[in-house]
Amino acid sequence: MSAEPSASPSRTGVWLIGARGSVATTAMTGCAAVAAGLYPVTGLVTETEPFAASGLPALSSLVFGGHDTVDCPLPKRAETLAAAGVLPHGLPSAVRGELTATDGEIRPGVPLPGDTRSEDALIDTLVGDIRDFTRRQGLARTVVVNVASTEPAPEGAALPASSLYAAAALRAGCPYINFTPSAGLHHPALAAEALAAALPYAGRDGKTGQTLLRSVLGPMFAQRALRVLAWSGTNLLGGGDGAALADPAAAAAKNSGKERVLADTLGTVPQGEVHIDDVPALGDWKTAWDHIAFDGFLGTRMVLQTTWQGCDSALAAPLVLDLVRLLARADERGLTGPRPELAFYFKDPDPGAPAALGEQYAALLDFGRRLGDPR
Amino acid sequence: MSAEPSASPSRTGVWLIGARGSVATTAMTGCAAVAAGLYPVTGLVTETEPFAASGLPALSSLVFGGHDTVDCPLPKRAETLAAAGVLPHGLPSAVRGELTATDGEIRPGVPLPGDTRSEDALIDTLVGDIRDFTRRQGLARTVVVNVASTEPAPEGAALPASSLYAAAALRAGCPYINFTPSAGLHHPALAAEALAAALPYAGRDGKTGQTLLRSVLGPMFAQRALRVLAWSGTNLLGGGDGAALADPAAAAAKNSGKERVLADTLGTVPQGEVHIDDVPALGDWKTAWDHIAFDGFLGTRMVLQTTWQGCDSALAAPLVLDLVRLLARADERGLTGPRPELAFYFKDPDPGAPAALGEQYAALLDFGRRLGDPR
Amino acid sequence: MSAEPSASPSRTGVWLIGARGSVATTAMTGCAAVAAGLYPVTGLVTETEPFAASGLPALSSLVFGGHDTVDCPLPKRAETLAAAGVLPHGLPSAVRGELTATDGEIRPGVPLPGDTRSEDALIDTLVGDIRDFTRRQGLARTVVVNVASTEPAPEGAALPASSLYAAAALRAGCPYINFTPSAGLHHPALAAEALAAALPYAGRDGKTGQTLLRSVLGPMFAQRALRVLAWSGTNLLGGGDGAALADPAAAAAKNSGKERVLADTLGTVPQGEVHIDDVPALGDWKTAWDHIAFDGFLGTRMVLQTTWQGCDSALAAPLVLDLVRLLARADERGLTGPRPELAFYFKDPDPGAPAALGEQYAALLDFGRRLGDPR
Amino acid sequence: MSAEPSASPSRTGVWLIGARGSVATTAMTGCAAVAAGLYPVTGLVTETEPFAASGLPALSSLVFGGHDTVDCPLPKRAETLAAAGVLPHGLPSAVRGELTATDGEIRPGVPLPGDTRSEDALIDTLVGDIRDFTRRQGLARTVVVNVASTEPAPEGAALPASSLYAAAALRAGCPYINFTPSAGLHHPALAAEALAAALPYAGRDGKTGQTLLRSVLGPMFAQRALRVLAWSGTNLLGGGDGAALADPAAAAAKNSGKERVLADTLGTVPQGEVHIDDVPALGDWKTAWDHIAFDGFLGTRMVLQTTWQGCDSALAAPLVLDLVRLLARADERGLTGPRPELAFYFKDPDPGAPAALGEQYAALLDFGRRLGDPR
Repeated sequence: MSAEPSASPSRTGVWLIGARGSVATTAMTGCAAVAAGLYPVTGLVTETEPFAASGLPALSSLVFGGHDTVDCPLPKRAETLAAAGVLPHGLPSAVRGELTATDGEIRPGVPLPGDTRSEDALIDTLVGDIRDFTRRQGLARTVVVNVASTEPAPEGAALPASSLYAAAALRAGCPYINFTPSAGLHHPALAAEALAAALPYAGRDGKTGQTLLRSVLGPMFAQRALRVLAWSGTNLLGGGDGAALADPAAAAAKNSGKERVLADTLGTVPQGEVHIDDVPALGDWKTAWDHIAFDGFLGTRMVLQTTWQGCDSALAAPLVLDLVRLLARADERGLTGPRPELAFYFKDPDPGAPAALGEQYAALLDFGRRLGDPR
Repeated sequence: MSAEPSASPSRTGVWLIGARGSVATTAMTGCAAVAAGLYPVTGLVTETEPFAASGLPALSSLVFGGHDTVDCPLPKRAETLAAAGVLPHGLPSAVRGELTATDGEIRPGVPLPGDTRSEDALIDTLVGDIRDFTRRQGLARTVVVNVASTEPAPEGAALPASSLYAAAALRAGCPYINFTPSAGLHHPALAAEALAAALPYAGRDGKTGQTLLRSVLGPMFAQRALRVLAWSGTNLLGGGDGAALADPAAAAAKNSGKERVLADTLGTVPQGEVHIDDVPALGDWKTAWDHIAFDGFLGTRMVLQTTWQGCDSALAAPLVLDLVRLLARADERGLTGPRPELAFYFKDPDPGAPAALGEQYAALLDFGRRLGDPR
Repeated sequence: MSAEPSASPSRTGVWLIGARGSVATTAMTGCAAVAAGLYPVTGLVTETEPFAASGLPALSSLVFGGHDTVDCPLPKRAETLAAAGVLPHGLPSAVRGELTATDGEIRPGVPLPGDTRSEDALIDTLVGDIRDFTRRQGLARTVVVNVASTEPAPEGAALPASSLYAAAALRAGCPYINFTPSAGLHHPALAAEALAAALPYAGRDGKTGQTLLRSVLGPMFAQRALRVLAWSGTNLLGGGDGAALADPAAAAAKNSGKERVLADTLGTVPQGEVHIDDVPALGDWKTAWDHIAFDGFLGTRMVLQTTWQGCDSALAAPLVLDLVRLLARADERGLTGPRPELAFYFKDPDPGAPAALGEQYAALLDFGRRLGDPR
Repeated sequence: MSAEPSASPSRTGVWLIGARGSVATTAMTGCAAVAAGLYPVTGLVTETEPFAASGLPALSSLVFGGHDTVDCPLPKRAETLAAAGVLPHGLPSAVRGELTATDGEIRPGVPLPGDTRSEDALIDTLVGDIRDFTRRQGLARTVVVNVASTEPAPEGAALPASSLYAAAALRAGCPYINFTPSAGLHHPALAAEALAAALPYAGRDGKTGQTLLRSVLGPMFAQRALRVLAWSGTNLLGGGDGAALADPAAAAAKNSGKERVLADTLGTVPQGEVHIDDVPALGDWKTAWDHIAFDGFLGTRMVLQTTWQGCDSALAAPLVLDLVRLLARADERGLTGPRPELAFYFKDPDPGAPAALGEQYAALLDFGRRLGDPR
């Protein structure tokens, strides 16, 4: 977390798209806090025993920077999150030094209003920002992570912002993670470039709550040969994501991931809708209600309901840190292309991954072992 | 399901302890209905594709009998269940012939009030009943299944009724399944005899609702490195089981199974209690509420709640049929001793089994393949 | 319920718009069943002690008829409802005589496809049907009740179907009840005519589930000076109503009633949306989830969640019978105009009514006393 | 809240039994905060418009003291509550002066271990403490409020501690409120003395969550003539109350109040149990789940479930302040004896009170008007 440059090859850059958002701020603040021993490693899968020998970069070796279109200083952003109960009280001041240093590494995002530059010119600027960060900080490599607000499904030929950043990651030679349902590297215009780049990447759309549950409940119904008729869900959340997803176009991208896990684990698409409501009063606290109507033996109708009350940023942040560490190590070991081994973390994972969380976890453990294998 | 004796080696006996109870009646009625094509195979795992080549006995080849201490005729019992919505309306009359035939194969249970016979004498009577059934019906083998009401944890030296039946199964040379939390074959006095008998057996306590959920949710929390602090549960149910489990001693046996799945999947025993309330108005319909308080990243407190509304007999009956078919085939293939491969079905499975449902399912699939292997 | 004409002045007609729908069928079947003593009076407020001296028409004196655009025979419709668990098994055959008689009193609704008649001609036909029924059956009076599927909010100058029926009720001299959120007598074009008619009427939109709950929970929060920030709701239901309300225009009418009760009882409109999802697998069974975020002392955030699982027709039918009896008696006593005393039954009651259920109940009791007062 | 003595007749004493507990600390801290304008009056019914002319003592005129058997300083206790999220961060330091002053007015409770004094001697000591406080502070009057942990139902002839305090209040001439289910003034040995004292008193057991809900839902079912079959409840809470109520004897007192509201509003006692589980991880945060099975028209079975997640102290504290102000004013106006007009606040109110919250609220409003009437 040090902001001082160093020649150590073991320091890894983390370049966050949406660097002043709740998820990014929680990830950076939490990384500093856990690295300093102020908090336990709860929620960090890469800190569990099976990954001890995987050769992952230490939390203390991560150096943060990123792009954002807003300019609220990070220490102030962290205070706001603490006031809302997303971060523990007192934590922002305890890691103020690290936050201030990181704040100096955040560059303006694209496109800013009135910006008339071409797509290539925009991408070049982004590439320059990332390369400059990596060079100045003397980093072995920098992993680019999209944690910006969900954007509407792209229309027309223009590259959406998320894909401009993804293109910049490719051109800067950086492993890339899409933690959102936005297009990012999935945009067809980037397909050839992604294939040609000798880089690992993973996505998309972090699996933090309702879909996490679905990825264990769906297999349960399937394994027990129960017949799911309808799976309905309502999500209530405020914060930036609540507002962004109140846009039906943005929600469509998210919901397709939620539906996919049902289709993949149940073998059919049940009846039922998914709603994402913007409830500003809830802030970062998300409540997800699921109602599952299913038939058992002799057609007996039964119902399971779940209510998940979680803090979105606190759920997402450790997954972001996990992914950065895993993908940095994969890059170090020369692994390239999409990494379905990381499906454990995503709603809509790369092709070839299993859909049940248990199998995804087994694949992740196996990946952790491979990362640690002697060459 | 035919009531006529036959020399066919392919007919398999199913001897139910508690043969006039809800689970037994639903299993027998449903087996007849599904075998006749009146209802789909929902809930029967052994009817799914992976078990097609396992060589399991056909549903239509199962012949039912059993012991019970009450004497309500099966067709009447089935009508009562239909009136309560446990069985579909019209089904009891559609399979009345089969139910009447089975009714003729039910013998009085032990001990009846005023019975002063010794344990050995009682067991001999039970053995005689089972052997007589097997011989008269010309069955290849008979699987004994305990689906009687839960009995209190045994005190003192006397064998509890469930263990008398288990001893009878051993002496009659029958594979044995304990679908309840009662002692059955787990009684220490039967350990040596069980070991010596060249028979397969499995138990105990069918995993039908709350514990089924726990066996997929517990691993989810563990895999995500989330820290479960408290897991509280309340079960509401009427019917015979509600009344039996309102007895704290009987509930203790059941709850130890429920707790075990949490301890095994989470690695710790969280705070929280489990209640089983007798609510006669609910009949066979069981509602289970679970409240799980857990800490995420930086100690952020979150909560998951689940409400499961199911029909206990409809959940249990297909598992009983699955187990009978699997254990009958295991016996045919010469497999003996405890079968942890069947942990998928039990709250408190035989030693050596994994605790996560996904892994239990994988073990079951593997067992299904082994049962079908050419010798 | 007798289908035979009679000169008795005490027989009261009930003319149902949507006479073959679930609510109408349940009301007619249930009225016959309760009048015959086959079932207790559960759900019928007018059968409780406070209304014993109100002079209401007896259930056995109600004679049913109505309009519908579909032509499924009532006895068959009732069988379908019994198969779906909405009516008790065996009940349709027990009252088959009454259902068959009523079936003969159902006339085609308007407008049927291809019908090119003017609004006045359509209304005249409807008036003729109602008058003919009243005369042939020798009824003291006939109450018209709209229990048809919700129609979209009216656009343009044309009268929506619900208002054609309402106009017919006025012209036929019949008390009128609008149990749906459709325009009915609320259409501005009928305002003058309604005012001039010396008839009692009441509406609109029966309060059967989620809004019933809101009308007791809203006052609770207000009385305790708690600050409700967000009240979110999701309704899952199949049946005809599920499909009709999946149309956003139809749902808008319904939701405005749901919101009104919150605004009226809380004094503000909290954040939060209401969804009505069509889930065909649920049939007439409706599940409503409400999530209420509120602030207590010193701004402490708290949450109440409710889940209501009810059968829409079983909830609505006794309210329809109550309303018919009360409005028939009001007509007999010469009461005219809107009856806010019946607000207890409606989401969106006539002006002047209190919003809290307790106060609405008190007003209803008072109304019941007035109806029974000696002149 | 001033700690300085004053001759003003308008200052009112509040003597809290259990003065260092969560409820007392929240009440005192919150009173100071609201009086200082730091927080809005949310949750304080006596601050709503209908009570503006009731002549109640101002929040700023309340002076706190009390008894407790523990000796953690109040400012520290408040910090602990803030760390647990029960009080807002920063509030304890904002009102540290008031808390420190109040801390100086807390006297040791009875009986302390090893105390061998007679009941009369103990009571005399308590009376002396209360009188000394009232005199030194120059108070018009002092209201005594029991907010101590629930004690087991009394056995034998000895007065339980709660009744010793109640006797002291009587002898010191103080209005008395029992906010707990403990015996307090209800003890038969105090009946004659309570009757003879010309003092107003009220109780018992503050209605803060599950029972509050029941007092609006019970009437709803009754008014709609729905038949409640079973009402089951589970409460999860930590904190002192969780531990105290894990004692079945203490829980019995509490549960009888919870049951009473159902019996009184439904007219029958439905099936179902109430559990109170000690879950230390939840601290002062209480989750109450209720499951209500009821029959509607034609016996159709339906279910309502509620989940209430609240902070017990934040719910209780404003009610305590309300009660103190109302009873102080009642005393000033010469009202004596039990005050069923305050049933709005209690699970188990004084005889003669209605059971439905709406009617209790109406009675409270009426009481507020009487308190403000010109003499």
